[in-house]
Amino acid sequence: MEISIDLLLCDAVDFPGETYSVSVLKVGYCLPQTDGTFRADGTVTLITGPRTVLVDTGGAWDRDFLLASLRERGLEPADVELVVGTHGHSDHIGNLGLFPTAVTIVGHDVSRGDTYRPNGLAGGHAYVVDEHVIPSPGHTGQDVSVQVRGTSAGTVLVAGDLFECCSDEGSWQHLSMNTAVQEVSRQEALRTADVIIPGHGLPFRISSLERRQGGTDVMPSPLVDWCENQEPSLIQDYLT
Amino acid sequence: MEISIDLLLCDAVDFPGETYSVSVLKVGYCLPQTDGTFRADGTVTLITGPRTVLVDTGGAWDRDFLLASLRERGLEPADVELVVGTHGHSDHIGNLGLFPTAVTIVGHDVSRGDTYRPNGLAGGHAYVVDEHVIPSPGHTGQDVSVQVRGTSAGTVLVAGDLFECCSDEGSWQHLSMNTAVQEVSRQEALRTADVIIPGHGLPFRISSLERRQGGTDVMPSPLVDWCENQEPSLIQDYLT
Repeated sequence: MEISIDLLLCDAVDFPGETYSVSVLKVGYCLPQTDGTFRADGTVTLITGPRTVLVDTGGAWDRDFLLASLRERGLEPADVELVVGTHGHSDHIGNLGLFPTAVTIVGHDVSRGDTYRPNGLAGGHAYVVDEHVIPSPGHTGQDVSVQVRGTSAGTVLVAGDLFECCSDEGSWQHLSMNTAVQEVSRQEALRTADVIIPGHGLPFRISSLERRQGGTDVMPSPLVDWCENQEPSLIQDYLT
Repeated sequence: MEISIDLLLCDAVDFPGETYSVSVLKVGYCLPQTDGTFRADGTVTLITGPRTVLVDTGGAWDRDFLLASLRERGLEPADVELVVGTHGHSDHIGNLGLFPTAVTIVGHDVSRGDTYRPNGLAGGHAYVVDEHVIPSPGHTGQDVSVQVRGTSAGTVLVAGDLFECCSDEGSWQHLSMNTAVQEVSRQEALRTADVIIPGHGLPFRISSLERRQGGTDVMPSPLVDWCENQEPSLIQDYLT
Protein backbone atom coordinates (compact mmCIF):
# COMPACT_ATOMS: atom_id res chain seq x y z
CA MET A 1 0.00 0.00 0.00
CA GLU A 2 1.26 3.45 -0.76
CA ILE A 3 -0.14 6.92 -0.94
CA SER A 4 -0.56 8.18 -4.47
CA ILE A 5 -0.85 11.92 -4.94
CA ASP A 6 -2.79 12.94 -7.99
CA LEU A 7 -2.80 16.52 -9.21
CA LEU A 8 -5.91 17.74 -11.00
CA LEU A 9 -6.23 21.09 -12.67
CA CYS A 10 -9.06 23.11 -11.18
CA ASP A 11 -11.86 24.24 -13.46
CA ALA A 12 -12.15 27.54 -11.58
CA VAL A 13 -9.90 30.34 -10.45
CA ASP A 14 -12.18 31.52 -7.63
CA PHE A 15 -12.32 29.80 -4.28
CA PRO A 16 -15.01 31.36 -2.11
CA GLY A 17 -14.93 30.96 1.63
CA GLU A 18 -16.98 31.99 4.63
CA THR A 19 -14.16 34.06 6.06
CA TYR A 20 -11.72 34.55 3.22
CA SER A 21 -12.17 34.05 -0.49
CA VAL A 22 -9.36 33.55 -2.97
CA SER A 23 -9.49 34.77 -6.57
CA VAL A 24 -6.79 34.39 -9.16
CA LEU A 25 -6.74 37.72 -11.01
CA LYS A 26 -4.20 36.55 -13.56
CA VAL A 27 -2.93 33.07 -14.25
CA GLY A 28 0.82 33.16 -14.60
CA TYR A 29 2.52 31.59 -17.58
CA CYS A 30 5.90 30.67 -18.95
CA LEU A 31 5.99 30.06 -22.68
CA PRO A 32 9.23 29.39 -24.57
CA GLN A 33 9.40 31.26 -27.86
CA THR A 34 11.06 30.07 -31.05
CA ASP A 35 13.72 32.82 -30.84
CA GLY A 36 15.12 31.52 -27.54
CA THR A 37 13.31 34.04 -25.35
CA PHE A 38 10.33 33.14 -23.26
CA ARG A 39 7.21 35.02 -22.35
CA ALA A 40 6.46 34.86 -18.66
CA ASP A 41 4.33 36.46 -16.02
CA GLY A 42 3.61 35.56 -12.42
CA THR A 43 0.19 34.58 -11.10
CA VAL A 44 -1.62 37.44 -9.33
CA THR A 45 -4.01 36.44 -6.55
CA LEU A 46 -6.45 38.45 -4.46
CA ILE A 47 -7.59 37.33 -1.02
CA THR A 48 -10.68 39.10 0.31
CA GLY A 49 -12.30 38.89 3.73
CA PRO A 50 -11.66 40.69 7.00
CA ARG A 51 -8.51 41.98 5.31
CA THR A 52 -7.69 42.47 1.67
CA VAL A 53 -4.48 40.78 0.63
CA LEU A 54 -2.78 40.77 -2.76
CA VAL A 55 -0.29 38.00 -3.41
CA ASP A 56 2.16 38.97 -6.14
CA THR A 57 1.65 41.97 -8.39
CA GLY A 58 2.74 40.64 -11.78
CA GLY A 59 5.32 42.34 -13.95
CA ALA A 60 5.67 46.10 -14.47
CA TRP A 61 3.58 45.76 -17.64
CA ASP A 62 0.59 44.56 -15.57
CA ARG A 63 -0.08 47.94 -13.95
CA ASP A 64 -3.21 48.82 -15.93
CA PHE A 65 -4.49 45.24 -15.81
CA LEU A 66 -4.06 45.16 -12.05
CA LEU A 67 -5.80 48.49 -11.51
CA ALA A 68 -8.70 47.41 -13.74
CA SER A 69 -9.00 44.01 -12.02
CA LEU A 70 -9.19 45.62 -8.61
CA ARG A 71 -11.75 48.17 -9.78
CA GLU A 72 -13.92 45.42 -11.27
CA ARG A 73 -14.15 44.15 -7.71
CA GLY A 74 -14.88 47.58 -6.26
CA LEU A 75 -11.38 48.02 -4.90
CA GLU A 76 -8.82 50.77 -5.16
CA PRO A 77 -5.12 50.12 -4.48
CA ALA A 78 -5.47 51.87 -1.10
CA ASP A 79 -7.97 49.18 -0.06
CA VAL A 80 -5.25 46.52 -0.20
CA GLU A 81 -3.92 46.23 3.34
CA LEU A 82 -1.26 43.59 2.79
CA VAL A 83 0.80 42.99 -0.33
CA VAL A 84 2.89 39.83 -0.47
CA GLY A 85 5.61 39.36 -3.03
CA THR A 86 6.31 35.65 -2.84
CA HIS A 87 9.85 36.37 -4.02
CA GLY A 88 11.77 39.22 -5.58
CA HIS A 89 11.64 38.29 -9.25
CA SER A 90 10.50 40.93 -11.71
CA ASP A 91 7.42 39.03 -12.88
CA HIS A 92 6.06 38.95 -9.32
CA ILE A 93 6.95 42.31 -7.76
CA GLY A 94 6.54 44.71 -10.68
CA ASN A 95 3.79 46.82 -9.14
CA LEU A 96 4.62 47.26 -5.48
CA GLY A 97 4.62 51.00 -6.16
CA LEU A 98 0.81 50.96 -6.46
CA PHE A 99 0.56 50.14 -2.77
CA PRO A 100 2.81 52.58 -0.90
CA THR A 101 0.80 52.47 2.33
CA ALA A 102 0.14 48.71 2.55
CA VAL A 103 2.03 46.39 4.82
CA THR A 104 4.39 44.73 2.38
CA ILE A 105 6.07 41.37 2.60
CA VAL A 106 8.65 40.55 -0.03
CA GLY A 107 10.49 37.37 0.74
CA HIS A 108 11.50 37.64 4.37
CA ASP A 109 11.12 41.40 4.73
CA VAL A 110 8.02 42.89 6.36
CA SER A 111 7.61 46.65 6.00
CA ARG A 112 5.20 49.53 5.97
CA GLY A 113 6.61 52.56 4.25
CA ASP A 114 10.30 52.60 5.05
CA THR A 115 9.81 50.97 8.45
CA TYR A 116 10.90 47.35 8.49
CA ARG A 117 9.56 45.11 11.24
CA PRO A 118 11.45 42.28 12.89
CA ASN A 119 9.86 38.94 12.01
CA GLY A 120 10.62 35.26 12.12
CA LEU A 121 10.26 34.35 8.44
CA ALA A 122 13.99 33.84 7.92
CA GLY A 123 13.99 31.53 10.94
CA GLY A 124 11.18 29.40 9.53
CA HIS A 125 8.32 31.01 11.45
CA ALA A 126 5.07 32.09 9.82
CA TYR A 127 3.91 35.70 9.79
CA VAL A 128 0.32 35.27 10.90
CA VAL A 129 -2.23 37.74 9.56
CA ASP A 130 -4.93 35.76 11.31
CA GLU A 131 -5.75 32.10 11.67
CA HIS A 132 -6.83 31.95 8.05
CA VAL A 133 -4.04 33.81 6.27
CA ILE A 134 -0.48 32.80 6.98
CA PRO A 135 2.51 33.83 4.90
CA SER A 136 5.00 31.04 5.39
CA PRO A 137 8.65 30.60 4.49
CA GLY A 138 10.72 27.71 3.33
CA HIS A 139 11.11 27.68 -0.39
CA THR A 140 13.91 28.58 -2.75
CA GLY A 141 15.85 31.12 -0.74
CA GLN A 142 13.81 33.93 0.68
CA ASP A 143 10.43 32.92 -0.69
CA VAL A 144 7.11 32.88 1.08
CA SER A 145 3.74 31.41 0.24
CA VAL A 146 0.35 32.30 1.65
CA GLN A 147 -1.90 29.66 3.14
CA VAL A 148 -5.64 30.41 3.23
CA ARG A 149 -7.68 28.03 5.36
CA GLY A 150 -11.38 27.43 5.30
CA THR A 151 -12.35 28.06 1.70
CA SER A 152 -14.99 25.95 0.00
CA ALA A 153 -12.12 24.04 -1.60
CA GLY A 154 -10.35 23.57 1.72
CA THR A 155 -6.90 24.99 2.35
CA VAL A 156 -5.57 26.98 -0.59
CA LEU A 157 -1.84 27.64 -0.84
CA VAL A 158 -0.82 30.61 -2.96
CA ALA A 159 2.59 29.20 -3.61
CA GLY A 160 4.51 31.55 -5.88
CA ASP A 161 7.21 29.64 -7.70
CA LEU A 162 7.39 26.84 -5.16
CA PHE A 163 5.38 25.22 -7.94
CA GLU A 164 5.79 26.49 -11.50
CA CYS A 165 2.59 24.80 -12.60
CA CYS A 166 0.64 21.61 -12.10
CA SER A 167 2.96 19.55 -14.24
CA ASP A 168 6.36 20.98 -13.39
CA GLU A 169 8.03 17.78 -12.27
CA GLY A 170 11.36 17.69 -14.06
CA SER A 171 11.35 21.41 -14.85
CA TRP A 172 11.13 23.29 -11.53
CA GLN A 173 14.60 22.12 -10.59
CA HIS A 174 16.20 24.20 -13.36
CA LEU A 175 14.81 27.37 -11.78
CA SER A 176 15.57 26.49 -8.17
CA MET A 177 18.35 28.01 -6.11
CA ASN A 178 18.24 25.05 -3.74
CA THR A 179 16.46 21.96 -5.00
CA ALA A 180 16.83 20.04 -1.72
CA VAL A 181 15.18 22.77 0.33
CA GLN A 182 12.52 23.37 -2.28
CA GLU A 183 11.70 19.67 -2.51
CA VAL A 184 11.05 19.57 1.24
CA SER A 185 8.79 22.62 0.96
CA ARG A 186 6.94 21.12 -2.00
CA GLN A 187 6.27 17.90 -0.13
CA GLU A 188 5.00 19.87 2.87
CA ALA A 189 2.72 21.86 0.57
CA LEU A 190 1.35 18.70 -1.04
CA ARG A 191 0.74 17.27 2.43
CA THR A 192 -1.07 20.28 3.88
CA ALA A 193 -2.92 22.02 1.02
CA ASP A 194 -6.01 20.97 -0.87
CA VAL A 195 -5.47 23.43 -3.72
CA ILE A 196 -2.21 24.96 -4.87
CA ILE A 197 -2.05 28.17 -6.88
CA PRO A 198 1.32 27.99 -8.66
CA GLY A 199 3.40 30.88 -9.98
CA HIS A 200 3.08 30.07 -13.67
CA GLY A 201 0.01 27.98 -14.28
CA LEU A 202 -3.54 27.17 -13.34
CA PRO A 203 -4.56 26.20 -9.81
CA PHE A 204 -4.57 22.50 -9.17
CA ARG A 205 -6.18 20.23 -6.65
CA ILE A 206 -4.31 17.63 -4.64
CA SER A 207 -5.94 14.27 -4.27
CA SER A 208 -4.27 11.74 -2.02
CA LEU A 209 -5.32 8.21 -2.72
CA GLU A 210 -4.28 5.02 -1.06
CA ARG A 211 -3.27 2.71 -3.86
CA ARG A 212 -2.35 -0.95 -3.59
CA GLN A 213 1.03 -1.47 -5.17
CA GLY A 214 1.53 -4.76 -6.97
CA GLY A 215 5.18 -4.32 -7.80
CA THR A 216 7.99 -1.84 -7.96
CA ASP A 217 6.50 0.00 -10.93
CA VAL A 218 3.85 2.56 -10.09
CA MET A 219 1.60 3.68 -12.87
CA PRO A 220 2.01 7.39 -13.56
CA SER A 221 -1.05 9.42 -12.86
CA PRO A 222 -3.21 9.91 -15.96
CA LEU A 223 -4.23 13.24 -14.49
CA VAL A 224 -0.67 14.48 -14.53
CA ASP A 225 -0.45 13.42 -18.14
CA TRP A 226 -3.66 15.30 -18.79
CA CYS A 227 -2.19 18.40 -17.16
CA GLU A 228 0.84 18.21 -19.37
CA ASN A 229 -1.27 18.00 -22.45
CA GLN A 230 -3.86 20.58 -21.54
CA GLU A 231 -2.18 23.32 -19.63
CA PRO A 232 -0.41 25.36 -22.31
CA SER A 233 -3.57 25.92 -24.29
CA LEU A 234 -5.53 26.69 -21.17
CA ILE A 235 -2.91 29.18 -20.11
CA GLN A 236 -3.01 30.79 -23.54
CA ASP A 237 -6.70 31.51 -22.98
CA TYR A 238 -5.72 33.59 -19.97
CA LEU A 239 -3.11 35.69 -21.72
CA THR A 240 -4.19 39.28 -21.78
CA MET B 1 55.17 45.89 2.69
CA GLU B 2 51.45 45.41 2.28
CA ILE B 3 48.67 47.14 0.44
CA SER B 4 46.39 49.11 2.70
CA ILE B 5 42.96 49.95 1.38
CA ASP B 6 41.47 53.09 2.82
CA LEU B 7 37.84 54.01 2.31
CA LEU B 8 36.98 57.69 2.23
CA LEU B 9 33.46 59.05 2.07
CA CYS B 10 32.95 61.17 -1.04
CA ASP B 11 31.89 64.76 -0.60
CA ALA B 12 29.67 64.57 -3.68
CA VAL B 13 26.94 62.36 -5.04
CA ASP B 14 27.48 63.33 -8.68
CA PHE B 15 30.23 61.85 -10.80
CA PRO B 16 30.31 63.51 -14.22
CA GLY B 17 31.96 61.78 -17.12
CA GLU B 18 32.62 62.46 -20.78
CA THR B 19 30.49 59.52 -21.89
CA TYR B 20 28.40 58.60 -18.88
CA SER B 21 27.69 60.54 -15.72
CA VAL B 22 26.51 59.01 -12.47
CA SER B 23 24.20 60.80 -10.03
CA VAL B 24 22.91 59.44 -6.77
CA LEU B 25 19.27 60.53 -6.63
CA LYS B 26 18.74 59.23 -3.12
CA VAL B 27 21.29 58.02 -0.61
CA GLY B 28 20.06 54.80 0.95
CA TYR B 29 19.99 54.40 4.68
CA CYS B 30 19.41 51.83 7.38
CA LEU B 31 18.63 53.27 10.80
CA PRO B 32 17.70 51.10 13.78
CA GLN B 33 14.84 52.56 15.79
CA THR B 34 14.35 52.31 19.54
CA ASP B 35 11.24 50.12 19.12
CA GLY B 36 13.16 47.33 17.39
CA THR B 37 12.13 48.28 13.86
CA PHE B 38 14.48 49.96 11.46
CA ARG B 39 13.97 52.57 8.82
CA ALA B 40 15.59 51.64 5.54
CA ASP B 41 15.66 52.60 1.92
CA GLY B 42 17.92 51.61 -0.94
CA THR B 43 20.17 54.02 -2.81
CA VAL B 44 18.72 55.20 -6.14
CA THR B 45 21.24 56.04 -8.87
CA LEU B 46 20.82 57.56 -12.31
CA ILE B 47 23.33 57.00 -15.10
CA THR B 48 23.04 59.38 -18.05
CA GLY B 49 24.84 59.35 -21.37
CA PRO B 50 24.19 57.57 -24.65
CA ARG B 51 21.60 55.58 -22.70
CA THR B 52 19.68 56.47 -19.58
CA VAL B 53 19.96 53.85 -16.87
CA LEU B 54 18.33 53.77 -13.46
CA VAL B 55 19.91 51.52 -10.86
CA ASP B 56 17.42 50.60 -8.14
CA THR B 57 14.09 52.32 -7.74
CA GLY B 58 13.81 52.66 -3.96
CA GLY B 59 10.83 51.45 -1.99
CA ALA B 60 7.18 51.75 -3.03
CA TRP B 61 6.94 54.95 -0.96
CA ASP B 62 9.56 56.61 -3.22
CA ARG B 63 7.27 56.90 -6.25
CA ASP B 64 6.64 60.64 -6.07
CA PHE B 65 10.23 61.34 -5.08
CA LEU B 66 11.49 59.35 -8.03
CA LEU B 67 9.17 61.04 -10.52
CA ALA B 68 10.15 64.48 -9.19
CA SER B 69 13.87 63.65 -9.29
CA LEU B 70 13.67 62.53 -12.89
CA ARG B 71 11.67 65.61 -13.89
CA GLU B 72 14.21 67.91 -12.23
CA ARG B 73 16.64 66.45 -14.73
CA GLY B 74 14.26 66.84 -17.66
CA LEU B 75 13.39 63.16 -17.76
CA GLU B 76 10.15 61.26 -17.84
CA PRO B 77 9.97 57.58 -16.85
CA ALA B 78 9.67 56.62 -20.53
CA ASP B 79 13.13 58.15 -21.12
CA VAL B 80 14.72 55.49 -18.91
CA GLU B 81 15.86 52.76 -21.28
CA LEU B 82 17.32 50.33 -18.76
CA VAL B 83 16.22 49.75 -15.18
CA VAL B 84 18.44 47.60 -13.01
CA GLY B 85 17.23 46.20 -9.71
CA THR B 86 20.44 45.10 -8.03
CA HIS B 87 18.41 42.51 -6.15
CA GLY B 88 14.81 41.77 -5.40
CA HIS B 89 14.39 43.35 -1.97
CA SER B 90 11.48 45.70 -1.44
CA ASP B 91 13.61 48.77 -0.72
CA HIS B 92 15.28 48.44 -4.13
CA ILE B 93 12.56 47.34 -6.55
CA GLY B 94 9.51 49.22 -5.29
CA ASN B 95 8.89 51.24 -8.44
CA LEU B 96 9.54 48.97 -11.39
CA GLY B 97 5.95 49.66 -12.43
CA LEU B 98 6.92 53.20 -13.49
CA PHE B 99 9.01 51.74 -16.32
CA PRO B 100 6.85 49.18 -18.12
CA THR B 101 8.63 49.61 -21.47
CA ALA B 102 12.26 49.71 -20.27
CA VAL B 103 14.62 46.79 -20.52
CA THR B 104 14.61 45.54 -16.95
CA ILE B 105 17.25 43.59 -15.11
CA VAL B 106 16.38 42.31 -11.67
CA GLY B 107 18.99 40.00 -10.31
CA HIS B 108 19.75 37.56 -13.11
CA ASP B 109 16.59 38.15 -15.15
CA VAL B 110 16.66 40.40 -18.22
CA SER B 111 13.27 41.30 -19.68
CA ARG B 112 11.33 43.79 -21.71
CA GLY B 113 7.63 43.59 -21.10
CA ASP B 114 6.87 39.93 -20.50
CA THR B 115 9.66 38.74 -22.80
CA TYR B 116 12.63 37.37 -20.92
CA ARG B 117 15.94 37.15 -22.72
CA PRO B 118 18.54 34.44 -22.21
CA ASN B 119 21.67 35.92 -20.61
CA GLY B 120 24.81 34.81 -18.87
CA LEU B 121 24.44 36.60 -15.53
CA ALA B 122 23.71 33.42 -13.60
CA GLY B 123 26.83 31.89 -15.13
CA GLY B 124 29.02 34.78 -14.00
CA HIS B 125 29.01 36.71 -17.29
CA ALA B 126 28.37 40.43 -17.51
CA TYR B 127 25.43 41.87 -19.43
CA VAL B 128 27.18 44.56 -21.42
CA VAL B 129 25.20 47.70 -22.25
CA ASP B 130 28.31 49.18 -23.81
CA GLU B 131 31.96 49.37 -22.82
CA HIS B 132 31.11 51.86 -20.11
CA VAL B 133 28.07 50.32 -18.45
CA ILE B 134 28.27 46.70 -17.36
CA PRO B 135 25.81 45.02 -15.02
CA SER B 136 27.80 42.27 -13.37
CA PRO B 137 26.86 39.34 -11.17
CA GLY B 138 28.51 37.69 -8.26
CA HIS B 139 27.15 38.90 -5.00
CA THR B 140 24.78 37.48 -2.44
CA GLY B 141 22.63 35.16 -4.53
CA GLN B 142 21.19 36.67 -7.66
CA ASP B 143 22.52 40.19 -7.25
CA VAL B 144 24.07 42.42 -9.85
CA SER B 145 26.00 45.65 -9.67
CA VAL B 146 26.62 48.20 -12.42
CA GLN B 147 30.13 49.30 -13.30
CA VAL B 148 30.49 52.70 -15.01
CA ARG B 149 33.92 53.37 -16.46
CA GLY B 150 35.45 56.67 -17.42
CA THR B 151 33.88 59.13 -15.04
CA SER B 152 35.89 62.02 -13.63
CA ALA B 153 36.27 59.92 -10.49
CA GLY B 154 37.38 56.86 -12.45
CA THR B 155 35.39 53.64 -12.39
CA VAL B 156 32.22 53.90 -10.33
CA LEU B 157 30.53 50.73 -9.10
CA VAL B 158 26.84 51.03 -8.25
CA ALA B 159 26.97 48.10 -5.91
CA GLY B 160 23.54 47.59 -4.38
CA ASP B 161 23.90 45.75 -1.10
CA LEU B 162 27.24 44.22 -1.96
CA PHE B 163 28.29 47.02 0.37
CA GLU B 164 25.78 48.30 2.92
CA CYS B 165 27.78 51.48 3.46
CA CYS B 166 31.34 52.69 3.74
CA SER B 167 31.84 51.30 7.22
CA ASP B 168 29.93 48.03 7.06
CA GLU B 169 32.74 45.70 8.08
CA GLY B 170 31.28 43.49 10.77
CA SER B 171 27.67 44.21 9.83
CA TRP B 172 27.21 43.18 6.17
CA GLN B 173 27.64 39.55 7.09
CA HIS B 174 24.38 39.51 9.06
CA LEU B 175 22.46 40.41 5.91
CA SER B 176 24.30 38.09 3.54
CA MET B 177 22.92 34.87 2.13
CA ASN B 178 26.43 33.65 1.37
CA THR B 179 29.24 35.47 3.13
CA ALA B 180 32.02 33.55 1.36
CA VAL B 181 30.73 34.44 -2.11
CA GLN B 182 29.99 38.00 -1.10
CA GLU B 183 33.45 38.46 0.40
CA VAL B 184 35.03 37.44 -2.91
CA SER B 185 32.81 39.89 -4.77
CA ARG B 186 33.61 42.66 -2.30
CA GLN B 187 37.33 42.14 -2.72
CA GLU B 188 36.95 42.20 -6.50
CA ALA B 189 34.99 45.44 -6.22
CA LEU B 190 37.62 47.03 -3.99
CA ARG B 191 40.29 45.96 -6.50
CA THR B 192 38.57 47.28 -9.63
CA ALA B 193 36.51 50.33 -8.62
CA ASP B 194 37.62 53.82 -7.67
CA VAL B 195 34.29 54.79 -6.15
CA ILE B 196 31.63 52.51 -4.72
CA ILE B 197 28.00 53.57 -4.36
CA PRO B 198 26.63 51.28 -1.64
CA GLY B 199 23.04 50.27 -1.04
CA HIS B 200 22.56 52.05 2.26
CA GLY B 201 25.05 54.85 2.62
CA LEU B 202 27.06 57.56 0.94
CA PRO B 203 29.43 56.87 -1.95
CA PHE B 204 32.97 56.22 -0.90
CA ARG B 205 36.33 56.35 -2.60
CA ILE B 206 38.85 53.54 -2.49
CA SER B 207 42.43 54.49 -1.92
CA SER B 208 45.05 51.76 -2.13
CA LEU B 209 48.26 52.64 -0.36
CA GLU B 210 51.41 50.66 0.01
CA ARG B 211 52.23 50.66 3.68
CA ARG B 212 55.33 49.29 5.37
CA GLN B 213 54.32 46.81 8.01
CA GLY B 214 56.45 46.77 11.16
CA GLY B 215 54.85 43.78 12.81
CA THR B 216 51.80 41.57 12.79
CA ASP B 217 49.53 44.34 13.96
CA VAL B 218 48.32 46.69 11.26
CA MET B 219 46.97 50.00 12.34
CA PRO B 220 43.30 50.35 11.44
CA SER B 221 42.56 53.03 8.94
CA PRO B 222 41.70 56.34 10.61
CA LEU B 223 39.47 57.03 7.63
CA VAL B 224 37.34 54.00 8.33
CA ASP B 225 37.02 55.20 11.92
CA TRP B 226 36.02 58.58 10.58
CA CYS B 227 33.37 56.96 8.38
CA GLU B 228 31.92 55.12 11.32
CA ASN B 229 31.64 58.31 13.32
CA GLN B 230 30.32 60.55 10.58
CA GLU B 231 28.08 58.55 8.37
CA PRO B 232 24.83 58.30 10.37
CA SER B 233 24.53 62.05 10.72
CA LEU B 234 25.44 62.58 7.09
CA ILE B 235 22.83 60.05 6.03
CA GLN B 236 20.25 61.76 8.19
CA ASP B 237 20.79 64.90 6.15
CA TYR B 238 19.69 63.01 3.08
CA LEU B 239 16.50 61.63 4.56
CA THR B 240 13.51 63.00 2.73
